[in-house]
Amino acid sequence: MDAIILVGLMAGALTTSSSIPQAVRILRTKSARDVSALFFMLMSAGMCLWLVYGVARADVAIVLWNTVSLGLCILILALKRAYG
Amino acid sequence: MDAIILVGLMAGALTTSSSIPQAVRILRTKSARDVSALFFMLMSAGMCLWLVYGVARADVAIVLWNTVSLGLCILILALKRAYG
Repeated sequence: MDAIILVGLMAGALTTSSSIPQAVRILRTKSARDVSALFFMLMSAGMCLWLVYGVARADVAIVLWNTVSLGLCILILALKRAYG
Repeated sequence: MDAIILVGLMAGALTTSSSIPQAVRILRTKSARDVSALFFMLMSAGMCLWLVYGVARADVAIVLWNTVSLGLCILILALKRAYG
């Protein structure tokens, strides 16, 4: 595998996995007051466009990680709605 | 300008600008308890790798927005440290 593709996959793994500790924190503390819903809405909208971009450029790193990240963002928005 | 480059620039604008409402919220409420520091640390590390990836692929959308996003992530980490 091309080294640069590997860097892209690792980059995406980090930015994608970053949402997990935020989701876990909300679940643990049952509180999301300080978390900005607008942050995750804008992030989700941007990820949808990154998906279009990645598909158009046949860029596996961008498509894979933005798909997973989008799912995690929607999860955090649901947790924000549940825990306020 | 190639339409796909435009989509990439718009995608990056959205995911980058998403950090602004989170920073504003912490400044306004003087509270960041629910915000996960690990989220922004992992995000920052990932953005550094996206920068390497973007430079290697000469992808202006990725380089531009990850540079700005990295700055905003570091700002939010500083606010998290200041407001706990």
